[in-house]
Parts: sequence; C-alpha cells; structure tokens
Amino acid sequence: MKNRVIFIMGVSGCGKSTIGNLLSEALNIPFFDGDDYHPESNILKMSKGQALNDEDRLGWLQTLNKLAIKQLKNNSCIMVCSALKKNYRDILNDSIEDKTEWIFLHGSFEQITDRINKREGHFMPSDLLKSQFDTLEIPENAITMDVELSPDEIVNKIKNELTDKSAFGLFGLGVMGKSLCRNLANNGFKISMFNRYVEGVEENIAVNFKKDFPELSSALPFDDLLEFVTSIQKPRKIMLMVNAGKTVDIVIDDLLPHLTEGDIVIDGGNSNYNKTKERFEYLKTKNIHFIGTGVSGGEEGALKGPSIMPSGDGEAYKKVQLYLESISAKDDNNQPCCTYIGPEGSGHFVKMVHNGIEYVEMQLLAEVFSILLATGKNPDEIADVLENWKDKADSYLLNITINILQKKENNDWLVNKILDKAGNKGTGNWATIATAKLGAPSTLIASALFARYTSFYKDDRIEANKNFKTNHDMNIDISSNDLLNTYQFARIINHYQGFNLINQASKFYDWDLNLSEITRIWTAGCIIKSDLMIELVEVFKRTDSILKEETIIERIKALKPSTNKVVSHCILNELPISCLSESVNFFNGFTTENSTANLIQAQRDFFGAHTYQKIDDFSGKFYHTNWK
Amino acid sequence: MKNRVIFIMGVSGCGKSTIGNLLSEALNIPFFDGDDYHPESNILKMSKGQALNDEDRLGWLQTLNKLAIKQLKNNSCIMVCSALKKNYRDILNDSIEDKTEWIFLHGSFEQITDRINKREGHFMPSDLLKSQFDTLEIPENAITMDVELSPDEIVNKIKNELTDKSAFGLFGLGVMGKSLCRNLANNGFKISMFNRYVEGVEENIAVNFKKDFPELSSALPFDDLLEFVTSIQKPRKIMLMVNAGKTVDIVIDDLLPHLTEGDIVIDGGNSNYNKTKERFEYLKTKNIHFIGTGVSGGEEGALKGPSIMPSGDGEAYKKVQLYLESISAKDDNNQPCCTYIGPEGSGHFVKMVHNGIEYVEMQLLAEVFSILLATGKNPDEIADVLENWKDKADSYLLNITINILQKKENNDWLVNKILDKAGNKGTGNWATIATAKLGAPSTLIASALFARYTSFYKDDRIEANKNFKTNHDMNIDISSNDLLNTYQFARIINHYQGFNLINQASKFYDWDLNLSEITRIWTAGCIIKSDLMIELVEVFKRTDSILKEETIIERIKALKPSTNKVVSHCILNELPISCLSESVNFFNGFTTENSTANLIQAQRDFFGAHTYQKIDDFSGKFYHTNWK
Repeated sequence: MKNRVIFIMGVSGCGKSTIGNLLSEALNIPFFDGDDYHPESNILKMSKGQALNDEDRLGWLQTLNKLAIKQLKNNSCIMVCSALKKNYRDILNDSIEDKTEWIFLHGSFEQITDRINKREGHFMPSDLLKSQFDTLEIPENAITMDVELSPDEIVNKIKNELTDKSAFGLFGLGVMGKSLCRNLANNGFKISMFNRYVEGVEENIAVNFKKDFPELSSALPFDDLLEFVTSIQKPRKIMLMVNAGKTVDIVIDDLLPHLTEGDIVIDGGNSNYNKTKERFEYLKTKNIHFIGTGVSGGEEGALKGPSIMPSGDGEAYKKVQLYLESISAKDDNNQPCCTYIGPEGSGHFVKMVHNGIEYVEMQLLAEVFSILLATGKNPDEIADVLENWKDKADSYLLNITINILQKKENNDWLVNKILDKAGNKGTGNWATIATAKLGAPSTLIASALFARYTSFYKDDRIEANKNFKTNHDMNIDISSNDLLNTYQFARIINHYQGFNLINQASKFYDWDLNLSEITRIWTAGCIIKSDLMIELVEVFKRTDSILKEETIIERIKALKPSTNKVVSHCILNELPISCLSESVNFFNGFTTENSTANLIQAQRDFFGAHTYQKIDDFSGKFYHTNWK
Repeated sequence: MKNRVIFIMGVSGCGKSTIGNLLSEALNIPFFDGDDYHPESNILKMSKGQALNDEDRLGWLQTLNKLAIKQLKNNSCIMVCSALKKNYRDILNDSIEDKTEWIFLHGSFEQITDRINKREGHFMPSDLLKSQFDTLEIPENAITMDVELSPDEIVNKIKNELTDKSAFGLFGLGVMGKSLCRNLANNGFKISMFNRYVEGVEENIAVNFKKDFPELSSALPFDDLLEFVTSIQKPRKIMLMVNAGKTVDIVIDDLLPHLTEGDIVIDGGNSNYNKTKERFEYLKTKNIHFIGTGVSGGEEGALKGPSIMPSGDGEAYKKVQLYLESISAKDDNNQPCCTYIGPEGSGHFVKMVHNGIEYVEMQLLAEVFSILLATGKNPDEIADVLENWKDKADSYLLNITINILQKKENNDWLVNKILDKAGNKGTGNWATIATAKLGAPSTLIASALFARYTSFYKDDRIEANKNFKTNHDMNIDISSNDLLNTYQFARIINHYQGFNLINQASKFYDWDLNLSEITRIWTAGCIIKSDLMIELVEVFKRTDSILKEETIIERIKALKPSTNKVVSHCILNELPISCLSESVNFFNGFTTENSTANLIQAQRDFFGAHTYQKIDDFSGKFYHTNWK
C-alpha cells in the first residue's frame, strides 16, 4: 500500500480507538487520536461540559489535516476522528483526497448504547449519543464495518479491503483491451477489468477472460461500473479501450458520478485529436485528469509491448507513467517506447500521423507487389525478392508482407483470394484533413487514402476495365535493385512529409513536440517500426527536416535515378502507382526554386483581383494588374 | 408598387379618414374605413357610450384582416383603423406581414385636441382622447407623418416613401458586391446598397460608389443599417457579399432585429456548405428565409453576368428568382446561368467543387507552362502554342492564360516577375476535406491544393534546390500535339472527379442534384466555362458518370498514349507534374479490375485483426486468419 491516511470515523463509543490501535499494529504504521490535538480553548470548553460548535472545530480539523499532510511525506498513518459531518471530512481531505481512505464503524443507536454500557467505568448520557446520531451524515465511498463483528474480524476485513484495491483499471475488453490487461498483469500490476453487460451478447466477459489466462489470477473482473470504480486505489487510473467516437463520451458520462477529484481517465483508442482536446477541457471542469494516448502495435503489440503516445496534463501523466512505461515496448537501449508527447490532443495527433505514415508504407508495398506481379512473378517469388530487401529496408510491415505472401490455403496463395477493397478506420482520413487544414502537404497520406477509396469502387472498376482496357502487352523490365531504390526513395519522402506535418502542427498549436523522442518510441512496438525509423532518432536531434540531413541528401541523390526510371516505366505500362509517382512529383516540386505558381497568381489576379507579390520587391507589397 | 395593404393608424381626430381618402385617389386603389366593419354588438355598445374592450375588438380586427387578405388577391388597398396597440396590429398583420405598410399619423395631445376643436360640429371629451394617448403604443417600422403638415403634403410624402422603396438590397460593397450592384441596376432594378462605416477606413463607401456610376442614379446608398433595411420593399430581399466565415454570422445577427417575418437573406459569398446549413436552420427558427448561393465569374462576371448557384428553401427562391436570373450570364440558348440547385447548403457545396475543378484547371495550365518553358520557349511562344489549342480545348482559363503570357512590363514578360507562392481561399481546402470525408476520391483537387501549398514553402524550396539539384541537362522532347492530348486527358479526369464528388454528395445528403443543369449554368459566366463543359450538358442527360459515355471513352483511348508518353518523359526529366501524373495514376487505378488492395486487407488483418472478405464468397462474410 502506497502512502495513505486511513481515517477511522463514527459516533462516540463505536470503537474507533480500539480498531485504530489494532490496525496500526497490523499495518505497522503510526496511530493518531484526533482528540489529542484539540486546542486549549476546546479542552477548557469540554471540561466545563459545553458542546463544541463548528467554529471551535474548524482550527482543530485543520490541525489534523496538516498533521496528515506531514505524515504523508514519510509514510501512511491511521487517524481517528468522529468526523460526523461531510464538511468536517472535507476539511480533513483538503488537498489529499486522492490519498485518503475512510473507514466508517457503523452500528444502530441501540447497538452503540449497549456497547458503551458494557464497558467498565464508562457511561454516556443517552441524550448526548442521540445528538451524535442526529448529526451523523453517512459517508459515501467509505469502507463500512459493522460494529457487531469482533475487533480482530474488523481489522482483518479492513486490511483485505485496503490491500485488495487495484492499482489500475481497464475499461473495455475488446482485442486491444484484453491484450493490455494481460500485459499489465504480466508486469505485476494488480488490475481491475470492466466490460459492460449486454444480455445475450456480452455476458460475463471479464469473468470468463480472467479464467482463460493464469496471469490474471489476481485481477478483479467486473460488469458493474460502481464496483469496478470502487475497487481501484485513489487517485484512480482508468484506461478506456473503447471504440473512438460517441462511445468515449458516453463512457465518460457514465463514469463521472463515481469518480473522485484527482482521478485520471486515459483514452487509449484512436480518438480524433480535436475531440481529445474538448474532453480534456470538459473533465478539467470536474477536476478529473484526462490523458489521450495513442497505442500502436495491434493485438500482439498490445500484449507484448506497444508504442504508447500519451498527452494531456503533464502532472497527471507522472501518476500513470509507471504503468504505461512498464507495459510499453523497449527500444534498443532498453528505454520504454512511451513518452509524454505534449499538451491537449497532441498524443492522438501524433498517433493519427503514425497511422497516416502506416497507410503510405502499406500502399507502397501494395504498389511494389503490383509491379512485381506484372513482371510475372508469383507471391512466393515476390516474397523471396522482399526477403532480400531486409538488409537495406527492414521493417515490421516488410516482414509481415513476406509472411502474407507465403501463406497458402488449399495449395493456393491466400492473398490471391482476398477481395481487393481496402477498409479505413478514420485516422488516414483525419490525417488528410489535417494536412489540408494546416497547409502542410503530406501528399502521400492523401494518395494512400484515395487509393483505398478507389479500391472500394470495385464494381465501377470492373466496368471501367471492360470499357477502357486494350489488352496491350505489358513489357515490364525493372530490376529488383531499381525497385528497391524506388521503394526506399518513396519511404524517405513519406517520413519527411509525416514528420513535417507533426512539426507544423507543433508550431501551429504551440505543442513543442520532440521529433526525436517521437521517432524513438516508434522504433519498437508499433506498426511502422523500421531500420529507417531507428536512423531518424539521431537525425531529428540535429534537424527538424530530414531532407536537410547530409546522409539523407546523399542517399536521395543515389536513389533518384532508379526512381525516375521505375516510375516512368510503370506509367508507360499503365500500372497504377499513385504513391510512388507522387513521391517523385512532390520531391521535384519541393526542389524547384522557381515554380510556375507565378502563372496561378496571375490567373487569380486576372479574374478575381486577388493581387500578387513580385520577386524583386522584398517589401512584400501586393500588386494588381489590369491584364487586358 | 406590388400588392400591398396600406394601414393608416393613429388616435381619433388625427385625420386618418381624410388622408386615407386622398391617398386612395392618388394611388387609385380602394379605401376601407375600419369603423364600417364593427359587428352589431359593438355598434350597440358604442351607441350606449360604453367603451369597447379587447374581447369586443378581436372579432372586428379579424374581420378587417380577412378583408385585407381578400383584397390582396386582386390589388392593393388602403385601410384605416386606429390600431393603437401592438397586438391589434399583429392581428391585422396576421399571415400578411410581408405585404403590409403602416402609416402612423403622429401629433401631440395638444395638437390633436386643437385639430378636433377646430373642426366644425365636432367635439370630443378631453378624457376620451387622453385615454387614447394612454393606450397608444408607438409603432416601430411605420412611416410616421406629422399631422401639422397639410393633407396634400402628407399624401405626397407617403406616396414617395411607398414608391421609393427598393426592390432588392445589397450588403457589402467589395469588388464582387459593387459589380453585382451595377449589374442589378443595369437590369432596371431599384436597389439599396449598404456598406458599413469604419472611421478613417470605410467612409461614405455607398454614397461615393453611387456617384461614380450613372446606372446607379436611382440606387439608394446607406451606411445606417436600419435605414437600409427600411428602404427595401417587404418581403425584403437582402444579398450579403461579405467575407465568408464569422463575418456572415455577425452580419446576420446585426440584421435580425430589423427584419420582418418572411424576409429573405441571400449569402452570396464562398461560405462553407456546412455553415450554410446551420444558418438556414437558425434563420428558419426566426421565420426568415435563407438562401446560400455560389456566385462565380470574378469581378467581370459579377458585372456582366455571373453563374449563380442558389440553394435553400425552394419557395423562397421563387421570390428572388427574377433578380438572380436577370443578372446571371446567359447560356448559348439564352437561358439564365442560374438555377435552383437544391436544399440546405447544396449551392455552396456545388460552388466549392466548381472552385476545386478551377484549382485543377489552373494547376494543369501551370504544369503545361512549366513543360513548355523546359522546351526552351518564351512566354510569347508559349502563348502561340496555347492559341492553337483553342480549336480543341477552348476555355475561359486558357484564354486568360494566353493574355497573361503576352502581358509585358518594361519590355519583359510580367509573369516572369510574379512571386511563385500561390494563395488559396478555403474552397480548395474544403473540397479536399469533402473528398476525404465522403470517400469520393477527387484526387486532382487534392493534388492542385497541395501544389499550391508546396509553392508556399519558397524558402525551403530554394534550400532544397541547392541541396539536391544536380545540374543535369534536360532533354525535353514533347510535341505540342502530345502535350495538348495530355492536357485534355487530365481535364476529362478532372471533370469526372469533380462531378463524381457532387454526385456522391447528392446521394449522401439526399439533395437530388441535377448534374446536367449544373453543367449548363457553368457554360457561361463562370471561371471554368469551356467547350468541354458545353459538351457535358448533353452527356449528363444520359449518365451520371462521364467515363461511361461512349464518345468520351473513345476520346480517352485516343488521348492516353500521348499522355503516357508525356508524363513518363517529364518524370524522367524531373519536371514536377503532380496533377498530370495523378490523372494517369487515378485512371490506371480506376480501370484496374483486380488491384493489390488485397495485400492491404491482408496486412490489416495480420496486425489488427480487421478481417477481410473473399473474392469467391459473395455472401460478404468476413474472415480472419492467424497468419504466422
């Protein structure tokens, strides 16, 4: 148990001191009796038989609160105080609510009277006790103990309740949620796991999941939300692994009534970064911390160690750092692939761009695949070609592509049987929208997204194929090395554009993102881990644009001739290679000192009087010409 | 003056009947005295000297309202009624508020008393008049006349006020607003023109503008908003030509308090279609009609006849149809290039796509320009080449490009002196976002937008040029005819994609748009008018996809070999031609029956368990494979 102040409360005669002393011994932490800290004025009043009023109590409760704060610096402690009213408890909780536990010793008026009368030499006027019961406001969220139990029983039960609390809660047991639960448990964390109950559809999900995996033996399974929340140590850390979109808001609203100030909610789904900012600000008004985090690695990564991109309140992050970093993948230097990204929704923004880069890496492999198919190779032969590329272009996606190409079903390649309509889940779309909004041209992400969209119009494609295709002979003559160079060229442009988008967003939103750290946490655990990514960790320590790095410049120069050759050859042979083509065109545009955008400015001025600037007027003055 | 009910109101003795009779003669319309329509019960009460209460008045006022409605079917009329309270006037206005004019005869208690006493044989107890003044609620928005004037003076003044009203109001006198004002005036419409007053920056804009152009001699200039609104005939038609964005909302909120139910506000700026829908719904709650309309043609089009794309409430459109159609351009059959597009923000959506297509047409010309420059031609020689293309590829943008290329300044081509950083005004950006959101790949619009963005990074381009450019010899060998074919090919793809985006939006939002009508209103007046657009009017009567039209299919087949040659040649020679390239790649992808999107589906299933469908299972079942 971490540093905690355990308050034991209840009416006079309920046995607070007895239980407090026993629990102090059992947990080996100091015991303080609140009554020992009354000021002289209070003692005088009480000695005269006068009742204390709330004003008398204020200073005293504040003294106890200060004492609790002081003790928390060293250790846990037990503090006994009747604390009958909620506002007394609020004073005691002040600034440490996330570190207090409340034990309420509960009995009826008759039970307590009986207990007092049985004590030797004790007597309490019935009226005084009655007034205590009148004053008592039953606490919510306290561990409640029946005074009829024996002191030993009570102490044991309290011990269990206190130490049984989970360190971390996980909400939503889908593919990713389950993997993260097992990962947390494997890292020795006691967790609470929640999945909703939907009759006939989702029943006993958490309980059955726990049974399936021995590492979950100490995990607590729930389908009752209040029980789930109460089972977690304060300040609670609850990670949501639910579908991005409206569901996140619904879940937050369901959770809110059960949360305590200072609790931390973590959204681990692929949420839109704008929404994450809105939620962050909404929960701030409720004094609940919100951390939006990207999690990449798929099912396997989530289990064995994903790449994690948290953002939001930096102070709150420190409280969940241990958990997120423990379960994350480790880089080559054994450092966690998890780092605090920045404020607001920056973590989800970065994850969105991660997925955009992923879209492009996948599309480039699909285009390479189509070129190699056009040379007459079968999937196994293509896998062999790619296998040979590992020396220079190793990546997770290259590896799984080789596995995929080799996979057989009934003696035929499985890939050949898969319908060629590619799905998308929002992040590629949002990345394209972000690139348009921010004016940072990540053109390859757009190309990859649009290629998926085009693939989706399968019926139109079949009809268009009938209408347009002359059965011309393809005459593909491309060496494996030229193709590898082209692929590598396009990947460099992809990474340039993706990180440029992150960099422009960082400037626009004032996020102060660390590009090198972002590449570092993408060197392991995530879908776009690659040798190139490892190389970029060092590059981004020197520059924020990889196209300004000398080694990359030299490499590009070496790769470009092959790329020109391959792309032009494919176009002559009518192979669709949007992403490879665009990598060349973007680069050619980006390296053009004087472009023909001057004509566009002239046209805009001609028809819309939009004005233009001149190359030889550095004042930035705007001109308008009467062109006719 | 159109059909109107002119109510003359005021306390007893103010001269309502006198003025009413004179005005009836002057305007040659019937006169009704309200007092003639009291029911027997009221007459009885009055004859006994008892005052009427509001209940007594209700039926009577409703009778007058019905009489007014009946009269409106034939003509205008004058109706006299004291109508001292606002709720009496509301009953009289019921369902005809947009067709009533109110004249208030105003005088002080002393003035009226004096008038009555001077009348022969008349006497009115002072108490009764006093109670009328107590009851009187001064009307807003009424034409107010001082009873001290002579009846002839009053009648003349009223006549002027009534017939002086404008038919149409234009708010915002920027480049486009001014051109539209002159266009409206040239078409014989009496208009009110408003521009705000900003000290030292925008002073007397409307007054000075009126002075500059003789056609505006009967136009009314304003910088006071209430005076502007009041000067327009009800239901008022007010067109906003202000900057898209927040300004539109501010202007609407400024206008609202002065508007009357049934008034029509037209937003003629390049507003976002989603915002137009929101504003439409907001104003509906205030019973104000809202029409969002695209207006294309630039400064000159706005003056001589633009293409106009209105949407919103179809019934409200009928009330502004005369004005918008009159000022619009006319097509080859002399039909107006203005048509009701559809509900909600569909007009602004269509205008947004218009601008997207325009972005591409401009970018294609810029790419053609760069290729011809690379062949060593100067702008005059390039203009000559383009001049020869008019036979096959005539368009407004081609023509202005020729003018631009020929324009000299100090014996040098002006285009050479223009800074090559292309601006954008939102619509290209929104079209790209729409294409991403709707999953309708208008890839060329995105390419053209991104080319402008890339042009904007001039400093980075200069640095990249230094770092990367080997001074390789360009060896461009492209015939003018091959280049023309490539240009034409890309333009067809551009038009295919643009109209596909409109078509997908029409289906998604249930707008039921008419593609043929949209092309028709784009055959004149607008920036993208062209011979190709004229051809598409007929094509879209037969199909909603131009790539399914036989003549287009044959043309594409004929153009494609040149296109393959030119694009691949440019890529080999490192010329940036994003749009031309993408036109080829999109087409190649779109005509591919079996794409390698199957690999992407396999990858998604491998790392994310996203599942896939199979080509031989038409049930649409989803499969998941354990790939390792």
